[in-house]
Amino acid sequence: MARPKAQTAALMASPDDTEAQFYEALQRGDLERLMAVWADDDEVVCVHPGGPRVVGLVAIRASFEALFGNGGVPVRPEGVRRLHTLGCAVHHLAERVSVVTNEGPRTAWALATNVYVKTTQGWRMVAHHASPGTLGEPPPATGEAPSTLH
Amino acid sequence: MARPKAQTAALMASPDDTEAQFYEALQRGDLERLMAVWADDDEVVCVHPGGPRVVGLVAIRASFEALFGNGGVPVRPEGVRRLHTLGCAVHHLAERVSVVTNEGPRTAWALATNVYVKTTQGWRMVAHHASPGTLGEPPPATGEAPSTLH
Repeated sequence: MARPKAQTAALMASPDDTEAQFYEALQRGDLERLMAVWADDDEVVCVHPGGPRVVGLVAIRASFEALFGNGGVPVRPEGVRRLHTLGCAVHHLAERVSVVTNEGPRTAWALATNVYVKTTQGWRMVAHHASPGTLGEPPPATGEAPSTLH
Repeated sequence: MARPKAQTAALMASPDDTEAQFYEALQRGDLERLMAVWADDDEVVCVHPGGPRVVGLVAIRASFEALFGNGGVPVRPEGVRRLHTLGCAVHHLAERVSVVTNEGPRTAWALATNVYVKTTQGWRMVAHHASPGTLGEPPPATGEAPSTLH
């Protein structure tokens, strides 16, 4: 870990804190900071858009190390919807990714579900499931509740 | 709901019970039974493979009603991995789907993350995120833990 556990926990006092650290670490390509958000559990899972299931901290670390081979990922969470229980939080959101295509810079979208659990070390991520979205327009959230895409 | 609440809760005494009911209802195209597994929360979310975010019970019901227009879905969960905390369970798995192509019957795969929370009505689903997998070979789960794909 890049920082002492107590300091890390202080930074992850809520699911939103943990999620903010996850996306900041993704943007910066900061592997240590990114791995610090995960819970210490054999069954933590990460699915990158279009990718396989990656299970456990060792494999998840390797997958992000490969991803960071070209530096950070210009991804921003948008339209976060939150479902919180006493010790568990499910966030779903659209990931806005800036990509360079043959036609110039474009915005791509992925959909992600992030799950956090409360531990003695603060709120930690146990699942990140992202799936391919669209190029161009942001994906709408279908549902009766007001859209929080902005 | 198709059955009294007490009976439904009795059937969903564990996350595995709830998951079994979800996939049985999918296979049978039983909309009432399928909707009975969901928690009563505005932020419950469902992502079908390649689809948008569907948020809330009304929209989720409509999405499955459309899906069941041609009857049940021949889908079976395989390689289930489980992460359980006191009141929350995260299951991730491969969905085996029997599909008919121009070249005859084939097996398609999707990856799914299912999240359950413990309620006074038993364990209920709060998130189902499925993303497109492969046609043919089952998708491997990458990780240090023994694979439970079978």
